[in-house]
Amino acid sequence: MRWCRFQSDGKVSYGIVEGRYVQPVAGTPFTRHRKYGKPLPLSRVHLQIPVFPPTFYAAGNLNYREHIARLPEILGREGQMPTEPGIGYRAQSALIAHDEPIIIPKDATDRIQYEAELCVVIGKEGKHIPKDKVKDYILGYTICNDFSERTWQTSTQSWRSKNADTFKPLGPWIETDLDLDAARTLVRINGKVVQDFRTNNMIYDASDFISLLTTYATIRPGDIIILGTDGVPQNVKPGDTIEIEITGLGVLRNPVVRET
Amino acid sequence: MRWCRFQSDGKVSYGIVEGRYVQPVAGTPFTRHRKYGKPLPLSRVHLQIPVFPPTFYAAGNLNYREHIARLPEILGREGQMPTEPGIGYRAQSALIAHDEPIIIPKDATDRIQYEAELCVVIGKEGKHIPKDKVKDYILGYTICNDFSERTWQTSTQSWRSKNADTFKPLGPWIETDLDLDAARTLVRINGKVVQDFRTNNMIYDASDFISLLTTYATIRPGDIIILGTDGVPQNVKPGDTIEIEITGLGVLRNPVVRET
Repeated sequence: MRWCRFQSDGKVSYGIVEGRYVQPVAGTPFTRHRKYGKPLPLSRVHLQIPVFPPTFYAAGNLNYREHIARLPEILGREGQMPTEPGIGYRAQSALIAHDEPIIIPKDATDRIQYEAELCVVIGKEGKHIPKDKVKDYILGYTICNDFSERTWQTSTQSWRSKNADTFKPLGPWIETDLDLDAARTLVRINGKVVQDFRTNNMIYDASDFISLLTTYATIRPGDIIILGTDGVPQNVKPGDTIEIEITGLGVLRNPVVRET
Repeated sequence: MRWCRFQSDGKVSYGIVEGRYVQPVAGTPFTRHRKYGKPLPLSRVHLQIPVFPPTFYAAGNLNYREHIARLPEILGREGQMPTEPGIGYRAQSALIAHDEPIIIPKDATDRIQYEAELCVVIGKEGKHIPKDKVKDYILGYTICNDFSERTWQTSTQSWRSKNADTFKPLGPWIETDLDLDAARTLVRINGKVVQDFRTNNMIYDASDFISLLTTYATIRPGDIIILGTDGVPQNVKPGDTIEIEITGLGVLRNPVVRET
């Protein structure tokens, strides 16, 4: 099932995507809900971020082998293979939806890059969750572009590298039935494929992260965890359009513009 | 004016604290609101965190001179005087209210410490805010205990040092008319004063942080920013009660218990 959040006639609702239509739903995927009204054409609604997360986790940037091996090309320093999952945070203030523009700050350099990431959406509150029970707490998956300004990432003001406004596109929706082992992550810039990797080729998966995280922290419905990227992301520039596809899930598309 | 958030008869509402009473308010301090019903005795309501922040900022742990000078006693390493404000994040999942227990995880060491911090509550959305306009965006101030497990703080899993469940007491309410220059921050453990410093003796103040932050990020109503602590926090142990007072604002009190 595909849960989306959309605006239509000035009102924001959850909906279930069925082909090219959205069936409006009263309530949320995390609470009681029921279908209402007629399906609307997907092309006529404005998709919103599928959830505003109470807590926004980033499960280690270094979670795919090729990305780590080639870190010198990305950040100018060696990357070490992790020996345990790494847990960090991102800012909710940076989130934007499918089709909304990534706005490059005036003083950013041209070292601005996408990071195509699988994002877990938590469906149920829990703590002290063993690895083999984690799947019971996952509502589904969406896509996050962990957009980054690379010179800022190694500066004293590194927070802005990944948390500047609009640097966290999220969407287009939450897929509850993803075949993760079959999924591939594709990145297209202006329609041309620039990355293609096996989505589930990560070093530590959602069960590793959530099991460690919930040793100390309670996860709650709507929390999200982004799971890292593979390979070597390329620079983009204002005027480009970035599409991140996870096969079986959908496409997250955002144009890049310069702050005026 | 003192804005609190409280539970009474199973319902959570905002209220205005007037002496020993709470006047219930429909709406929030960030939206349209009006008083309703009769004042309730403060002693009969259960205070909640005064706001659940959309984004939770921590404006640099190193923001008071004595804390920096004495960092070797706290973390076993030298602290450098900052040359610019530092911006970080905390996890919403760690927040608890006044009077709720700080629960020490089973595998924590005895190096567990309070950090008494002033916390800014944002009242209005804004970006690119010059220093001399920042005050127009501040609703008021509350208190945060940036509770920390010191051995974890320098471990590979440092996130848990400050973001484990219950490690971020916040409250008791939001004071909109604080005389910041007159305010002192006091910490009492089981009634005995263990710290006493001038609250506004920070190196970078709210206007420095918010001006830098909003160069890149939009602040929104309810966002909070904790502003660092001074001096040398001491270890506490299960059974202790921590009170942090900011004079003219109020007292944030939390007992410490061990996870069972």
